[in-house]
Amino acid sequence: MKNIYPYERKVYYYETDKMGIVHHSNYIRIFEESRVSFLQQAGMPFEEIEAAGVMIPVLSAECRYISPLVFDEPFAVYPHIESFNGVKMSLTYKIISRRTGKLCAEGNTSHCFTDYDLRPIRTKLKYPEIYKVFHDYLDYDVKDAE
Amino acid sequence: MKNIYPYERKVYYYETDKMGIVHHSNYIRIFEESRVSFLQQAGMPFEEIEAAGVMIPVLSAECRYISPLVFDEPFAVYPHIESFNGVKMSLTYKIISRRTGKLCAEGNTSHCFTDYDLRPIRTKLKYPEIYKVFHDYLDYDVKDAE
Amino acid sequence: MKNIYPYERKVYYYETDKMGIVHHSNYIRIFEESRVSFLQQAGMPFEEIEAAGVMIPVLSAECRYISPLVFDEPFAVYPHIESFNGVKMSLTYKIISRRTGKLCAEGNTSHCFTDYDLRPIRTKLKYPEIYKVFHDYLDYDVKDAE
Amino acid sequence: MKNIYPYERKVYYYETDKMGIVHHSNYIRIFEESRVSFLQQAGMPFEEIEAAGVMIPVLSAECRYISPLVFDEPFAVYPHIESFNGVKMSLTYKIISRRTGKLCAEGNTSHCFTDYDLRPIRTKLKYPEIYKVFHDYLDYDVKDAE
Repeated sequence: MKNIYPYERKVYYYETDKMGIVHHSNYIRIFEESRVSFLQQAGMPFEEIEAAGVMIPVLSAECRYISPLVFDEPFAVYPHIESFNGVKMSLTYKIISRRTGKLCAEGNTSHCFTDYDLRPIRTKLKYPEIYKVFHDYLDYDVKDAE
Repeated sequence: MKNIYPYERKVYYYETDKMGIVHHSNYIRIFEESRVSFLQQAGMPFEEIEAAGVMIPVLSAECRYISPLVFDEPFAVYPHIESFNGVKMSLTYKIISRRTGKLCAEGNTSHCFTDYDLRPIRTKLKYPEIYKVFHDYLDYDVKDAE
Repeated sequence: MKNIYPYERKVYYYETDKMGIVHHSNYIRIFEESRVSFLQQAGMPFEEIEAAGVMIPVLSAECRYISPLVFDEPFAVYPHIESFNGVKMSLTYKIISRRTGKLCAEGNTSHCFTDYDLRPIRTKLKYPEIYKVFHDYLDYDVKDAE
Repeated sequence: MKNIYPYERKVYYYETDKMGIVHHSNYIRIFEESRVSFLQQAGMPFEEIEAAGVMIPVLSAECRYISPLVFDEPFAVYPHIESFNGVKMSLTYKIISRRTGKLCAEGNTSHCFTDYDLRPIRTKLKYPEIYKVFHDYLDYDVKDAE
């Protein structure tokens, strides 16, 4: 199993709103970016999953806003696979400012696995390689690079 | 007190993603649009609140995705003020497709009231007119026009 | 031929940026919203065009920013089909503030007609009904309702 | 003068639309990201410019779409300061796919320099350090790292 590092970038100008802080909807997008990065690092890129005919739509998303990020502020996201049974999955996320070290937001998403027509599928039998990645990284702790 | 009607519009093309459905982050934005419409109809437009020096940042947001909206699909949002004490507020939302009548998504947001520097304020004493609107519409049920 | 009216709405909170004005990228999205409304009013909704197998991707887009729109400001968009030959099309747009009456932005987009694989198609022979709508409304002036 | 390298990242899922490609409005945002990166590398971060009281709003933006980017596709942006006179500035941009090497989009933006109230200012006398950066990098060619 490969090490997985946090997802890092800076805040874009267009992510701010007239309050001068990142608009709250964008954290949900940032969670998604970190999922994509997680799977990329785990050796099973999201686009490969979709190319195999598997979609992973979002069933629910939640975010608690603790300390607002501002324009150009560097941050890191720590995603964590909380549960996975081959049919459904839930993740948690922590967003940490690299400027202040503060926890800025935390949240979670839940997902199911479906075909292109958004019909639920069981990955264990039909897509064992996809199943294996999520199973392997269940409860894995993303760590900062040394 | 004025009647308040659901917030209605159609899905924009740019709100869809490669799954062919509305990207999940956009529902959080649609919740916000419905809050703005609610306050507008209640006679206390959001911009007036901000002009008075009051911000209402989001403390948390949550959405459960039940049936995906697609491009150009008309929908209605029913916001509901669940709690309000002059310092904090929570709302729930239901998004209904006007094409299928189905519940597409539901969720909630919680907020605090702050000054421009995002410091919490008590609206009851300092902004009685703003307080009154939220208090009056606490637990109000948005209804379809006859 | 049906009358076509300007596309109207207000600015959303999430469309603003830390300058306190609508982020410039959103005007390109508003142009698209007005195209969709135009086609809807012309009796040939965009989703019907796509259902028939025709895509209308953007080849170029341009916007000149004259007077910034702010949060909740009502505006109207006047799209205009400048050229159309069954294979390509260009439109111009004017965005007028309904608060100040000022011209806020103007721009243009050019498009081609393609199949789902983004290969160019000639609409005149293969999709005469789609061709007819664009041909009929070529150079049509969107007018305010009386 | 420091070397400036292209701005690089991958396409986010939420940047795609139902055509399965990056929505055209997002290229305008990507241009902005590359401007921010350019200034950061030039030693005059955008946030420092704004902290000094200078805004650089967009007067016009244009993009020509040549070859669509898809989800997760890596790309590089090459911004270029075409003109600058202390009051106005124009840039051009090229977006190259790192997967195919193809030119995906090119465009330009023009800007003025203003105070917080969006009133034009002359940077040469009042903000010589800001002026110097743009002047130094006028016509500079962004280069790939060796």
